[in-house]
Amino acid sequence: MYAPTDRTRLRRLPERGSYDRQAVHAILDEGFLCHVGFVLDDGRPCVIPTGYARAGETLYLHGSTGSRLGLRPGMDVCVGVTLLDGIVLARSAFHHSMNYRSVVVFGRARRVSDPREKEEALGALVEHIVPGRGADVRPGDRKELASTAVLAVPLDEVSAKVRRGDPVDEEEDYDLPVWAGVLPLEPTPGAPVPDPRLDPAVPLPAYVTGWRRARSAAGE
Amino acid sequence: MYAPTDRTRLRRLPERGSYDRQAVHAILDEGFLCHVGFVLDDGRPCVIPTGYARAGETLYLHGSTGSRLGLRPGMDVCVGVTLLDGIVLARSAFHHSMNYRSVVVFGRARRVSDPREKEEALGALVEHIVPGRGADVRPGDRKELASTAVLAVPLDEVSAKVRRGDPVDEEEDYDLPVWAGVLPLEPTPGAPVPDPRLDPAVPLPAYVTGWRRARSAAGE
Repeated sequence: MYAPTDRTRLRRLPERGSYDRQAVHAILDEGFLCHVGFVLDDGRPCVIPTGYARAGETLYLHGSTGSRLGLRPGMDVCVGVTLLDGIVLARSAFHHSMNYRSVVVFGRARRVSDPREKEEALGALVEHIVPGRGADVRPGDRKELASTAVLAVPLDEVSAKVRRGDPVDEEEDYDLPVWAGVLPLEPTPGAPVPDPRLDPAVPLPAYVTGWRRARSAAGE
Repeated sequence: MYAPTDRTRLRRLPERGSYDRQAVHAILDEGFLCHVGFVLDDGRPCVIPTGYARAGETLYLHGSTGSRLGLRPGMDVCVGVTLLDGIVLARSAFHHSMNYRSVVVFGRARRVSDPREKEEALGALVEHIVPGRGADVRPGDRKELASTAVLAVPLDEVSAKVRRGDPVDEEEDYDLPVWAGVLPLEPTPGAPVPDPRLDPAVPLPAYVTGWRRARSAAGE
């Protein structure tokens, strides 16, 4: 269990919250796109989407040396990962909702400077998004590693929030002749589109044709 | 066109950026989940996922009077909306990427207090997520409206960022015998799950069976 803090304690609908490590890890491992919030020099907030990967109790964020995310050696961030599982259609407008599994991580982002850690983190980023891919590709060279910023955020101040299941209506609304239920949603891969410059003799790997995010037990 | 500002001017890969109103609107209208960044009282950043709808040049965010988002009458926010269109598999680890269309909005969030504007905004939120749904459901009553916080953010300081198409590899890597291309991704609806308490005589509406996010021209 992660210890709840002032920032991770849920103000609203606390029954949807969880500090369970396994539940948090499962959500982080299923997603691969996060939204990173940080504070600009003028004191105002900024949110940037980027890719991430988890390694143990560290979250590695992909940045770039030219981007705002890569600029500073260390800064407070808040990382949000949200898996949208469905639209919840209730009989009243008010009780419409979404089914989702989300994680929020608060922490100080450390800029990864050790070349070996950076190389491993970048490998993890590729491998996390497409498991099996890492072994096939040309690894980053020194110049590429230098022009990529990787931030490491410790998984320490963390919470998960989950809503699943049927709509919950006001008791007197259940008799309304209005369809109610859940429309499930899942990010679904289409047919792979080969690069026009790809040699047709190169086979399509099984990790592409079979790509699917592992839906963890927490998501059932 | 939105006027670029210091905050919306892209530092990195400016060729991916756009300030075109139609392009921004199309992305905002296709998405319905955003990540809102704001600054906590202790000066640290916080990111929360929530639903939104656009009405003209206003973005309405769904909050709750009990949540952090609903607490303050006005605060600086940064709203990120990201549509993930695919995974870009390059021949080198470094050039792996994602195809996406994203919008970032900076602005001061105004808490909507006028009952009529609030009711319209909440109606827009439902109608935006499931077009056609608004006419079928019981509208919010006074108590429900009071317990929902709606924030309005003007679309003023806004930019879009889009990556689409094939991987871009280093020239010398094109000969590597590595599959390269794009794995398209799209949030796809599954079979609607009726509420167990639903009267089986109530028909499944066409706006549920036919639900699909309009893919705008910008997404092609």
